[in-house]
Amino acid sequence: MAANKKARTNPPYELLYWPGIPGRGEFIRLAFEAAGVSYTDIGNESEDGIKEVTSLIDASSTGTAGNPPPFAPPALRIPGAGPSSNPLIIYQTPSILSYLGPKLSLAGSNEAEAQWILSHTLTALDLNNEAHDTHHPIAVAKYYEDQKEESLKKARDFREARVPKFLGFFERVLKGNEEGKGRYLVGDKLSYADTTLWNVLSGLLFAFPKEMEARKGDYELLFETFYESVKETSGVKEYLASDRRKPFSTGVYRHYPELDRQ
Amino acid sequence: MAANKKARTNPPYELLYWPGIPGRGEFIRLAFEAAGVSYTDIGNESEDGIKEVTSLIDASSTGTAGNPPPFAPPALRIPGAGPSSNPLIIYQTPSILSYLGPKLSLAGSNEAEAQWILSHTLTALDLNNEAHDTHHPIAVAKYYEDQKEESLKKARDFREARVPKFLGFFERVLKGNEEGKGRYLVGDKLSYADTTLWNVLSGLLFAFPKEMEARKGDYELLFETFYESVKETSGVKEYLASDRRKPFSTGVYRHYPELDRQ
Repeated sequence: MAANKKARTNPPYELLYWPGIPGRGEFIRLAFEAAGVSYTDIGNESEDGIKEVTSLIDASSTGTAGNPPPFAPPALRIPGAGPSSNPLIIYQTPSILSYLGPKLSLAGSNEAEAQWILSHTLTALDLNNEAHDTHHPIAVAKYYEDQKEESLKKARDFREARVPKFLGFFERVLKGNEEGKGRYLVGDKLSYADTTLWNVLSGLLFAFPKEMEARKGDYELLFETFYESVKETSGVKEYLASDRRKPFSTGVYRHYPELDRQ
Repeated sequence: MAANKKARTNPPYELLYWPGIPGRGEFIRLAFEAAGVSYTDIGNESEDGIKEVTSLIDASSTGTAGNPPPFAPPALRIPGAGPSSNPLIIYQTPSILSYLGPKLSLAGSNEAEAQWILSHTLTALDLNNEAHDTHHPIAVAKYYEDQKEESLKKARDFREARVPKFLGFFERVLKGNEEGKGRYLVGDKLSYADTTLWNVLSGLLFAFPKEMEARKGDYELLFETFYESVKETSGVKEYLASDRRKPFSTGVYRHYPELDRQ
Protein backbone atom coordinates (compact mmCIF):
# COMPACT_ATOMS: atom_id res chain seq x y z
CA MET A 1 0.00 0.00 0.00
CA ALA A 2 1.25 3.47 -0.87
CA ALA A 3 2.28 5.79 1.92
CA ASN A 4 -0.64 8.10 2.01
CA LYS A 5 -1.01 11.58 3.36
CA LYS A 6 -4.70 11.84 2.50
CA ALA A 7 -5.86 8.45 3.74
CA ARG A 8 -7.56 9.77 6.85
CA THR A 9 -10.05 11.84 4.88
CA ASN A 10 -10.84 9.18 2.28
CA PRO A 11 -13.07 6.12 2.52
CA PRO A 12 -11.46 2.67 2.45
CA TYR A 13 -11.60 2.20 -1.32
CA GLU A 14 -11.42 -1.39 -2.56
CA LEU A 15 -10.41 -2.36 -6.08
CA LEU A 16 -11.79 -5.68 -7.32
CA TYR A 17 -9.77 -6.96 -10.25
CA TRP A 18 -7.87 -10.04 -11.40
CA PRO A 19 -4.55 -10.54 -9.57
CA GLY A 20 -1.13 -10.65 -11.21
CA ILE A 21 -1.74 -8.54 -14.31
CA PRO A 22 -2.08 -4.79 -14.92
CA GLY A 23 -5.13 -5.18 -17.20
CA ARG A 24 -7.95 -2.68 -16.95
CA GLY A 25 -7.48 -2.52 -13.19
CA GLU A 26 -4.26 -0.61 -13.82
CA PHE A 27 -6.13 2.53 -14.87
CA ILE A 28 -7.76 2.63 -11.44
CA ARG A 29 -4.54 1.81 -9.59
CA LEU A 30 -2.68 4.61 -11.37
CA ALA A 31 -5.33 7.16 -10.39
CA PHE A 32 -5.06 6.23 -6.71
CA GLU A 33 -1.27 6.15 -6.80
CA ALA A 34 -0.99 9.51 -8.60
CA ALA A 35 -3.34 11.05 -6.02
CA GLY A 36 -1.52 9.46 -3.10
CA VAL A 37 -4.81 8.03 -1.84
CA SER A 38 -4.75 4.56 -0.31
CA TYR A 39 -6.83 1.66 -1.60
CA THR A 40 -6.95 -2.08 -1.12
CA ASP A 41 -6.25 -4.14 -4.22
CA ILE A 42 -8.39 -7.11 -3.15
CA GLY A 43 -7.27 -9.45 -5.93
CA ASN A 44 -3.58 -8.97 -5.20
CA GLU A 45 -3.67 -8.34 -1.45
CA SER A 46 -6.29 -10.66 0.02
CA GLU A 47 -5.66 -14.36 0.35
CA ASP A 48 -8.92 -15.34 -1.31
CA GLY A 49 -9.11 -12.15 -3.32
CA ILE A 50 -9.73 -13.87 -6.62
CA LYS A 51 -12.81 -15.57 -5.14
CA GLU A 52 -14.26 -12.18 -4.30
CA VAL A 53 -13.70 -11.10 -7.88
CA THR A 54 -15.28 -14.18 -9.42
CA SER A 55 -18.26 -14.16 -7.04
CA LEU A 56 -18.89 -10.54 -7.95
CA ILE A 57 -19.44 -11.48 -11.60
CA ASP A 58 -21.25 -14.76 -10.98
CA ALA A 59 -23.48 -15.38 -13.99
CA SER A 60 -26.53 -15.87 -11.78
CA SER A 61 -26.10 -12.75 -9.65
CA THR A 62 -28.76 -10.06 -9.68
CA GLY A 63 -26.59 -7.81 -7.54
CA THR A 64 -25.43 -7.36 -3.97
CA ALA A 65 -26.88 -5.25 -1.15
CA GLY A 66 -28.83 -2.94 -3.43
CA ASN A 67 -26.12 -2.72 -6.08
CA PRO A 68 -26.56 -4.09 -9.60
CA PRO A 69 -24.29 -6.96 -10.69
CA PRO A 70 -21.10 -5.78 -12.45
CA PHE A 71 -20.71 -7.03 -16.01
CA ALA A 72 -16.95 -7.56 -15.62
CA PRO A 73 -14.02 -6.45 -13.48
CA PRO A 74 -12.71 -3.94 -12.58
CA ALA A 75 -15.18 -2.88 -9.91
CA LEU A 76 -14.75 -0.38 -7.10
CA ARG A 77 -16.28 -1.10 -3.71
CA ILE A 78 -16.68 1.57 -1.05
CA PRO A 79 -17.92 0.29 2.33
CA GLY A 80 -20.78 2.35 3.71
CA ALA A 81 -21.22 4.55 0.62
CA GLY A 82 -24.06 2.61 -1.01
CA PRO A 83 -27.79 2.08 -0.51
CA SER A 84 -28.82 1.93 3.20
CA SER A 85 -25.16 2.31 4.23
CA ASN A 86 -24.28 -0.88 2.40
CA PRO A 87 -21.17 -0.90 0.22
CA LEU A 88 -21.39 1.00 -3.04
CA ILE A 89 -20.20 -1.07 -6.01
CA ILE A 90 -19.39 0.61 -9.32
CA TYR A 91 -18.10 -1.15 -12.43
CA GLN A 92 -16.75 -0.13 -15.87
CA THR A 93 -13.34 1.58 -15.92
CA PRO A 94 -14.54 4.99 -17.24
CA SER A 95 -17.42 5.06 -14.74
CA ILE A 96 -15.07 4.29 -11.83
CA LEU A 97 -12.64 6.97 -13.01
CA SER A 98 -15.38 9.57 -13.45
CA TYR A 99 -16.58 8.82 -9.91
CA LEU A 100 -13.09 8.97 -8.38
CA GLY A 101 -11.85 11.88 -10.49
CA PRO A 102 -13.19 14.80 -8.43
CA LYS A 103 -12.56 12.95 -5.15
CA LEU A 104 -8.89 12.40 -6.08
CA SER A 105 -8.46 15.91 -7.55
CA LEU A 106 -7.77 14.36 -10.95
CA ALA A 107 -10.75 15.77 -12.86
CA GLY A 108 -9.67 19.31 -13.78
CA SER A 109 -10.79 22.68 -12.51
CA ASN A 110 -14.30 23.09 -13.91
CA GLU A 111 -17.18 21.28 -15.60
CA ALA A 112 -15.78 21.66 -19.12
CA GLU A 113 -12.39 20.26 -18.12
CA ALA A 114 -14.05 17.36 -16.28
CA GLN A 115 -15.96 16.44 -19.44
CA TRP A 116 -12.90 16.68 -21.71
CA ILE A 117 -10.95 14.52 -19.26
CA LEU A 118 -13.65 11.86 -19.47
CA SER A 119 -13.79 12.16 -23.28
CA HIS A 120 -10.03 11.75 -23.70
CA THR A 121 -10.03 8.86 -21.23
CA LEU A 122 -12.70 7.09 -23.28
CA THR A 123 -10.62 7.62 -26.42
CA ALA A 124 -7.48 6.24 -24.77
CA LEU A 125 -9.53 3.23 -23.61
CA ASP A 126 -10.82 2.73 -27.15
CA LEU A 127 -7.19 2.49 -28.24
CA ASN A 128 -6.62 0.06 -25.36
CA ASN A 129 -9.49 -2.11 -26.62
CA GLU A 130 -8.23 -2.06 -30.18
CA ALA A 131 -4.78 -3.11 -28.95
CA HIS A 132 -6.44 -6.05 -27.19
CA ASP A 133 -8.29 -7.02 -30.34
CA THR A 134 -5.02 -7.37 -32.30
CA HIS A 135 -4.52 -10.73 -30.59
CA HIS A 136 -8.22 -11.56 -30.22
CA PRO A 137 -9.95 -10.28 -33.36
CA ILE A 138 -12.48 -13.11 -33.62
CA ALA A 139 -13.34 -14.50 -30.19
CA VAL A 140 -12.32 -13.15 -26.81
CA ALA A 141 -12.77 -16.51 -25.11
CA LYS A 142 -10.61 -18.49 -27.55
CA TYR A 143 -6.83 -18.83 -27.70
CA TYR A 144 -4.65 -16.47 -29.70
CA GLU A 145 -3.24 -19.50 -31.52
CA ASP A 146 -6.72 -20.28 -32.82
CA GLN A 147 -7.10 -16.83 -34.40
CA LYS A 148 -3.54 -16.12 -35.38
CA GLU A 149 -4.15 -15.66 -39.10
CA GLU A 150 -6.78 -13.04 -38.41
CA SER A 151 -4.56 -11.46 -35.75
CA LEU A 152 -1.81 -10.89 -38.28
CA LYS A 153 -4.23 -8.95 -40.47
CA LYS A 154 -5.81 -7.06 -37.60
CA ALA A 155 -2.44 -6.11 -36.09
CA ARG A 156 -1.23 -4.82 -39.44
CA ASP A 157 -4.23 -2.52 -39.79
CA PHE A 158 -3.86 -1.47 -36.17
CA ARG A 159 -0.19 -0.55 -36.62
CA GLU A 160 -0.59 1.13 -40.00
CA ALA A 161 -3.92 2.92 -39.66
CA ARG A 162 -5.15 3.04 -36.10
CA VAL A 163 -1.98 3.76 -34.10
CA PRO A 164 -1.09 6.88 -36.16
CA LYS A 165 -4.69 8.06 -36.03
CA PHE A 166 -4.85 7.86 -32.23
CA LEU A 167 -1.31 9.09 -31.56
CA GLY A 168 -1.74 11.97 -34.00
CA PHE A 169 -4.94 12.91 -32.22
CA PHE A 170 -3.37 12.98 -28.77
CA GLU A 171 -0.38 14.93 -30.10
CA ARG A 172 -2.85 17.56 -31.36
CA VAL A 173 -4.66 17.63 -28.01
CA LEU A 174 -1.36 18.30 -26.24
CA LYS A 175 -0.43 20.97 -28.77
CA GLY A 176 -3.80 22.69 -28.44
CA ASN A 177 -3.68 22.77 -24.64
CA GLU A 178 -1.04 25.47 -24.29
CA GLU A 179 -1.27 25.79 -20.53
CA GLY A 180 -0.45 22.10 -20.19
CA LYS A 181 2.97 22.68 -21.79
CA GLY A 182 2.87 19.20 -23.32
CA ARG A 183 2.65 17.59 -19.90
CA TYR A 184 -1.14 17.48 -19.46
CA LEU A 185 -3.97 16.71 -21.88
CA VAL A 186 -6.36 19.12 -20.17
CA GLY A 187 -5.58 22.29 -18.20
CA ASP A 188 -2.43 22.79 -16.17
CA LYS A 189 -2.47 19.81 -13.86
CA LEU A 190 -2.49 16.03 -13.90
CA SER A 191 -5.80 14.23 -14.55
CA TYR A 192 -6.92 10.64 -14.84
CA ALA A 193 -6.88 11.12 -18.62
CA ASP A 194 -3.11 11.58 -18.38
CA THR A 195 -2.51 8.48 -16.27
CA THR A 196 -4.85 6.46 -18.51
CA LEU A 197 -3.21 7.50 -21.76
CA TRP A 198 0.21 7.00 -20.19
CA ASN A 199 -0.59 3.38 -19.36
CA VAL A 200 -1.88 2.74 -22.89
CA LEU A 201 1.34 4.16 -24.36
CA SER A 202 3.33 2.06 -21.93
CA GLY A 203 1.46 -1.03 -23.10
CA LEU A 204 1.98 -0.20 -26.78
CA LEU A 205 5.72 0.24 -26.22
CA PHE A 206 5.75 -3.24 -24.65
CA ALA A 207 3.59 -4.98 -27.24
CA PHE A 208 4.82 -3.28 -30.42
CA PRO A 209 8.41 -2.15 -29.68
CA LYS A 210 9.55 -1.96 -33.30
CA GLU A 211 6.45 -0.16 -34.51
CA MET A 212 6.61 2.37 -31.71
CA GLU A 213 10.32 2.95 -32.15
CA ALA A 214 9.71 3.71 -35.81
CA ARG A 215 6.83 6.06 -35.09
CA LYS A 216 7.53 7.89 -31.89
CA GLY A 217 9.67 10.57 -33.53
CA ASP A 218 6.48 11.79 -35.24
CA TYR A 219 4.90 12.60 -31.88
CA GLU A 220 7.40 14.64 -29.96
CA LEU A 221 5.11 16.13 -27.35
CA LEU A 222 3.58 12.75 -26.65
CA PHE A 223 6.78 10.74 -26.22
CA GLU A 224 9.40 13.29 -25.22
CA THR A 225 7.39 15.55 -22.94
CA PHE A 226 4.11 13.88 -21.89
CA TYR A 227 5.22 10.28 -21.47
CA GLU A 228 8.36 11.19 -19.51
CA SER A 229 6.55 13.77 -17.40
CA VAL A 230 3.73 11.46 -16.27
CA LYS A 231 6.25 8.72 -15.46
CA GLU A 232 8.14 11.09 -13.16
CA THR A 233 5.03 12.41 -11.39
CA SER A 234 5.10 12.09 -7.63
CA GLY A 235 3.15 8.99 -6.65
CA VAL A 236 3.34 7.47 -10.13
CA LYS A 237 7.14 7.30 -10.02
CA GLU A 238 7.20 5.50 -6.66
CA TYR A 239 4.44 3.14 -7.78
CA LEU A 240 6.25 2.16 -10.97
CA ALA A 241 9.36 1.33 -8.96
CA SER A 242 7.35 -0.81 -6.52
CA ASP A 243 6.29 -4.43 -6.76
CA ARG A 244 2.67 -3.28 -6.83
CA ARG A 245 3.20 -2.47 -10.52
CA LYS A 246 2.74 -5.81 -12.28
CA PRO A 247 4.63 -6.30 -15.55
CA PHE A 248 2.76 -6.65 -18.84
CA SER A 249 2.60 -10.31 -19.81
CA THR A 250 -0.40 -12.01 -21.40
CA GLY A 251 -3.20 -9.56 -20.66
CA VAL A 252 -4.38 -6.71 -22.88
CA TYR A 253 -0.80 -5.98 -24.01
CA ARG A 254 1.19 -8.97 -25.29
CA HIS A 255 4.47 -9.01 -27.09
CA TYR A 256 3.99 -11.37 -30.01
CA PRO A 257 6.91 -10.47 -32.33
CA GLU A 258 4.96 -11.63 -35.38
CA LEU A 259 2.31 -8.96 -34.72
CA ASP A 260 4.86 -6.16 -34.52
CA ARG A 261 6.41 -4.33 -37.48
CA GLN A 262 8.72 -6.75 -39.38
CA MET B 1 -37.81 19.48 -34.02
CA ALA B 2 -39.75 17.94 -31.16
CA ALA B 3 -42.46 20.01 -29.55
CA ASN B 4 -40.78 21.01 -26.39
CA LYS B 5 -42.15 22.15 -23.09
CA LYS B 6 -38.72 22.65 -21.48
CA ALA B 7 -36.96 24.44 -24.32
CA ARG B 8 -37.09 27.84 -22.69
CA THR B 9 -34.95 26.79 -19.73
CA ASN B 10 -32.41 24.83 -21.77
CA PRO B 11 -29.48 26.06 -23.85
CA PRO B 12 -29.61 25.64 -27.64
CA TYR B 13 -27.98 22.21 -27.74
CA GLU B 14 -26.41 21.22 -31.07
CA LEU B 15 -25.66 17.64 -32.07
CA LEU B 16 -22.84 17.20 -34.58
CA TYR B 17 -23.06 13.83 -36.28
CA TRP B 18 -23.19 12.28 -39.76
CA PRO B 19 -26.52 12.82 -41.53
CA GLY B 20 -28.85 10.08 -42.74
CA ILE B 21 -27.97 7.27 -40.31
CA PRO B 22 -28.82 6.58 -36.66
CA GLY B 23 -25.22 5.57 -35.76
CA ARG B 24 -23.77 6.67 -32.45
CA GLY B 25 -25.60 9.99 -32.74
CA GLU B 26 -28.82 8.12 -32.07
CA PHE B 27 -27.96 7.60 -28.40
CA ILE B 28 -27.81 11.38 -27.99
CA ARG B 29 -30.96 12.00 -30.02
CA LEU B 30 -32.94 9.51 -27.95
CA ALA B 31 -31.91 11.20 -24.70
CA PHE B 32 -33.13 14.58 -25.94
CA GLU B 33 -36.33 13.13 -27.34
CA ALA B 34 -37.14 11.16 -24.19
CA ALA B 35 -36.59 14.31 -22.11
CA GLY B 36 -38.65 16.48 -24.45
CA VAL B 37 -35.75 18.92 -24.72
CA SER B 38 -35.10 20.53 -28.06
CA TYR B 39 -31.80 20.28 -29.94
CA THR B 40 -30.53 21.01 -33.41
CA ASP B 41 -29.28 18.00 -35.35
CA ILE B 42 -26.74 19.96 -37.42
CA GLY B 43 -25.88 17.10 -39.81
CA ASN B 44 -29.48 16.43 -40.74
CA GLU B 45 -30.99 19.92 -40.38
CA SER B 46 -28.42 22.36 -41.74
CA GLU B 47 -27.75 22.69 -45.43
CA ASP B 48 -23.99 22.38 -45.05
CA GLY B 49 -24.25 20.37 -41.86
CA ILE B 50 -21.92 17.64 -43.00
CA LYS B 51 -19.17 20.23 -43.58
CA GLU B 52 -19.45 21.31 -39.98
CA VAL B 53 -19.03 17.71 -38.90
CA THR B 54 -16.01 17.05 -41.10
CA SER B 55 -14.30 20.35 -40.19
CA LEU B 56 -14.74 19.46 -36.51
CA ILE B 57 -12.61 16.33 -36.95
CA ASP B 58 -10.10 17.79 -39.39
CA ALA B 59 -6.88 15.81 -38.94
CA SER B 60 -4.85 18.99 -38.48
CA SER B 61 -7.11 20.63 -35.89
CA THR B 62 -5.77 21.37 -32.42
CA GLY B 63 -9.22 22.44 -31.27
CA THR B 64 -11.66 25.33 -31.54
CA ALA B 65 -12.18 28.33 -29.25
CA GLY B 66 -10.50 26.77 -26.24
CA ASN B 67 -11.98 23.31 -26.80
CA PRO B 68 -9.85 20.27 -27.65
CA PRO B 69 -10.40 18.64 -31.06
CA PRO B 70 -12.93 15.77 -30.97
CA PHE B 71 -11.55 12.38 -32.00
CA ALA B 72 -14.73 11.43 -33.87
CA PRO B 73 -18.43 12.31 -34.04
CA PRO B 74 -20.78 12.51 -32.25
CA ALA B 75 -20.00 15.82 -30.58
CA LEU B 76 -22.27 18.12 -28.60
CA ARG B 77 -21.90 21.87 -28.98
CA ILE B 78 -23.44 24.34 -26.55
CA PRO B 79 -23.12 27.98 -27.54
CA GLY B 80 -21.90 30.19 -24.70
CA ALA B 81 -21.21 27.34 -22.27
CA GLY B 82 -17.48 26.96 -22.94
CA PRO B 83 -14.25 28.80 -22.14
CA SER B 84 -14.64 32.63 -22.19
CA SER B 85 -18.29 32.25 -23.22
CA ASN B 86 -17.25 30.43 -26.38
CA PRO B 87 -19.16 27.30 -27.34
CA LEU B 88 -18.48 24.21 -25.24
CA ILE B 89 -17.71 21.15 -27.39
CA ILE B 90 -17.82 17.65 -25.87
CA TYR B 91 -17.18 14.41 -27.75
CA GLN B 92 -17.48 10.65 -27.01
CA THR B 93 -21.02 9.28 -26.62
CA PRO B 94 -20.74 8.26 -22.93
CA SER B 95 -19.19 11.62 -22.02
CA ILE B 96 -21.96 13.52 -23.79
CA LEU B 97 -24.61 11.40 -22.07
CA SER B 98 -23.02 11.79 -18.64
CA TYR B 99 -22.99 15.57 -19.18
CA LEU B 100 -26.59 15.73 -20.39
CA GLY B 101 -27.96 13.14 -17.98
CA PRO B 102 -28.57 15.35 -14.93
CA LYS B 103 -29.64 18.30 -17.12
CA LEU B 104 -32.27 16.16 -18.87
CA SER B 105 -33.38 14.42 -15.65
CA LEU B 106 -32.20 11.10 -17.08
CA ALA B 107 -29.45 10.31 -14.56
CA GLY B 108 -31.31 8.83 -11.60
CA SER B 109 -32.02 10.19 -8.13
CA ASN B 110 -28.64 10.14 -6.40
CA GLU B 111 -24.89 9.71 -6.95
CA ALA B 112 -24.99 5.90 -6.82
CA GLU B 113 -27.76 5.71 -9.42
CA ALA B 114 -25.94 8.21 -11.65
CA GLN B 115 -22.84 5.98 -11.60
CA TRP B 116 -24.76 2.76 -12.29
CA ILE B 117 -26.54 4.49 -15.19
CA LEU B 118 -23.19 5.44 -16.68
CA SER B 119 -21.82 1.93 -16.07
CA HIS B 120 -24.75 0.20 -17.77
CA THR B 121 -24.59 2.68 -20.63
CA LEU B 122 -20.93 1.85 -21.18
CA THR B 123 -21.79 -1.85 -21.19
CA ALA B 124 -24.59 -1.36 -23.73
CA LEU B 125 -22.16 0.65 -25.88
CA ASP B 126 -19.60 -2.15 -25.63
CA LEU B 127 -22.27 -4.45 -27.07
CA ASN B 128 -22.91 -1.83 -29.76
CA ASN B 129 -19.20 -1.82 -30.66
CA GLU B 130 -19.03 -5.60 -30.80
CA ALA B 131 -22.06 -5.63 -33.11
CA HIS B 132 -20.22 -3.20 -35.37
CA ASP B 133 -17.14 -5.40 -35.38
CA THR B 134 -19.12 -8.38 -36.72
CA HIS B 135 -18.95 -6.75 -40.17
CA HIS B 136 -15.58 -5.02 -39.64
CA PRO B 137 -13.45 -7.42 -37.61
CA ILE B 138 -10.15 -6.56 -39.31
CA ALA B 139 -10.15 -2.97 -40.55
CA VAL B 140 -12.73 -0.28 -39.89
CA ALA B 141 -11.74 1.69 -42.99
CA LYS B 142 -12.00 -1.23 -45.42
CA TYR B 143 -15.08 -2.71 -47.10
CA TYR B 144 -17.09 -5.50 -45.52
CA GLU B 145 -16.57 -7.51 -48.70
CA ASP B 146 -12.82 -7.42 -48.10
CA GLN B 147 -13.16 -8.97 -44.64
CA LYS B 148 -16.15 -11.22 -45.18
CA GLU B 149 -14.46 -14.50 -44.27
CA GLU B 150 -13.37 -13.07 -40.93
CA SER B 151 -16.81 -11.49 -40.45
CA LEU B 152 -18.47 -14.88 -40.71
CA LYS B 153 -16.30 -16.17 -37.86
CA LYS B 154 -16.66 -13.05 -35.77
CA ALA B 155 -20.43 -12.92 -36.20
CA ARG B 156 -20.75 -16.55 -35.18
CA ASP B 157 -18.87 -15.96 -31.95
CA PHE B 158 -20.86 -12.78 -31.36
CA ARG B 159 -24.18 -14.57 -31.79
CA GLU B 160 -23.26 -17.70 -29.85
CA ALA B 161 -21.15 -16.30 -26.99
CA ARG B 162 -21.39 -12.54 -26.71
CA VAL B 163 -25.10 -11.88 -27.31
CA PRO B 164 -26.26 -14.30 -24.59
CA LYS B 165 -23.63 -12.97 -22.20
CA PHE B 166 -24.77 -9.37 -22.61
CA LEU B 167 -28.50 -10.08 -22.78
CA GLY B 168 -28.29 -12.38 -19.77
CA PHE B 169 -26.51 -9.63 -17.87
CA PHE B 170 -29.13 -6.99 -18.62
CA GLU B 171 -31.93 -9.42 -17.78
CA ARG B 172 -30.29 -9.87 -14.35
CA VAL B 173 -29.95 -6.11 -13.89
CA LEU B 174 -33.67 -5.68 -14.58
CA LYS B 175 -34.51 -8.54 -12.24
CA GLY B 176 -32.36 -7.14 -9.45
CA ASN B 177 -33.85 -3.64 -9.71
CA GLU B 178 -37.21 -4.44 -8.16
CA GLU B 179 -38.48 -0.87 -8.05
CA GLY B 180 -37.99 -0.61 -11.81
CA LYS B 181 -40.58 -3.39 -12.38
CA GLY B 182 -38.69 -4.55 -15.48
CA ARG B 183 -39.13 -1.17 -17.14
CA TYR B 184 -35.99 0.60 -15.92
CA LEU B 185 -32.41 -0.60 -15.46
CA VAL B 186 -31.84 1.71 -12.47
CA GLY B 187 -34.33 3.07 -9.95
CA ASP B 188 -37.95 3.78 -10.76
CA LYS B 189 -37.67 6.15 -13.70
CA LEU B 190 -36.28 6.36 -17.20
CA SER B 191 -32.56 7.06 -17.63
CA TYR B 192 -30.20 7.42 -20.57
CA ALA B 193 -29.06 3.84 -19.86
CA ASP B 194 -32.56 2.68 -20.79
CA THR B 195 -32.72 4.63 -24.05
CA THR B 196 -29.17 3.52 -24.92
CA LEU B 197 -29.81 -0.17 -24.30
CA TRP B 198 -33.12 0.10 -26.11
CA ASN B 199 -31.43 1.38 -29.25
CA VAL B 200 -28.84 -1.39 -29.12
CA LEU B 201 -31.60 -4.02 -28.85
CA SER B 202 -33.44 -2.35 -31.69
CA GLY B 203 -30.29 -2.56 -33.80
CA LEU B 204 -29.72 -6.21 -32.95
CA LEU B 205 -33.31 -7.06 -33.93
CA PHE B 206 -32.64 -5.39 -37.29
CA ALA B 207 -29.21 -6.91 -37.95
CA PHE B 208 -29.75 -10.42 -36.58
CA PRO B 209 -33.49 -11.10 -36.85
CA LYS B 210 -33.26 -14.90 -36.82
CA GLU B 211 -30.81 -15.02 -33.95
CA MET B 212 -32.84 -12.63 -31.86
CA GLU B 213 -36.11 -14.40 -32.62
CA ALA B 214 -34.56 -17.64 -31.40
CA ARG B 215 -33.17 -16.09 -28.24
CA LYS B 216 -35.58 -13.47 -27.03
CA GLY B 217 -37.80 -15.93 -25.19
CA ASP B 218 -34.88 -16.46 -22.79
CA TYR B 219 -35.00 -12.83 -21.71
CA GLU B 220 -38.58 -12.06 -20.85
CA LEU B 221 -38.07 -8.91 -18.83
CA LEU B 222 -35.78 -7.49 -21.49
CA PHE B 223 -37.98 -8.11 -24.52
CA GLU B 224 -41.51 -8.28 -23.17
CA THR B 225 -41.38 -5.58 -20.51
CA PHE B 226 -38.36 -3.32 -20.97
CA TYR B 227 -38.18 -3.10 -24.75
CA GLU B 228 -41.89 -2.47 -25.17
CA SER B 229 -42.02 -0.01 -22.28
CA VAL B 230 -39.17 2.20 -23.50
CA LYS B 231 -40.65 2.21 -27.00
CA GLU B 232 -43.94 3.53 -25.65
CA THR B 233 -42.38 6.22 -23.44
CA SER B 234 -43.66 9.71 -24.04
CA GLY B 235 -41.21 11.51 -26.31
CA VAL B 236 -39.60 8.31 -27.52
CA LYS B 237 -42.84 7.06 -29.06
CA GLU B 238 -43.44 10.28 -30.99
CA TYR B 239 -39.83 10.35 -32.11
CA LEU B 240 -39.90 6.81 -33.45
CA ALA B 241 -43.00 7.62 -35.49
CA SER B 242 -41.38 10.76 -36.94
CA ASP B 243 -39.07 11.16 -39.92
CA ARG B 244 -36.33 12.32 -37.54
CA ARG B 245 -35.77 8.63 -36.72
CA LYS B 246 -33.53 7.36 -39.52
CA PRO B 247 -33.82 3.68 -40.42
CA PHE B 248 -30.91 1.31 -39.83
CA SER B 249 -29.12 0.69 -43.12
CA THR B 250 -25.34 0.42 -43.51
CA GLY B 251 -24.08 1.95 -40.28
CA VAL B 252 -23.30 0.12 -37.05
CA TYR B 253 -26.23 -2.27 -37.57
CA ARG B 254 -26.42 -3.98 -40.94
CA HIS B 255 -28.58 -6.84 -42.03
CA TYR B 256 -26.27 -9.23 -43.84
CA PRO B 257 -28.29 -12.48 -43.87
CA GLU B 258 -25.09 -14.55 -44.03
CA LEU B 259 -23.99 -13.16 -40.65
CA ASP B 260 -27.28 -14.08 -38.98
CA ARG B 261 -28.22 -17.51 -37.62
CA GLN B 262 -28.62 -19.94 -40.54
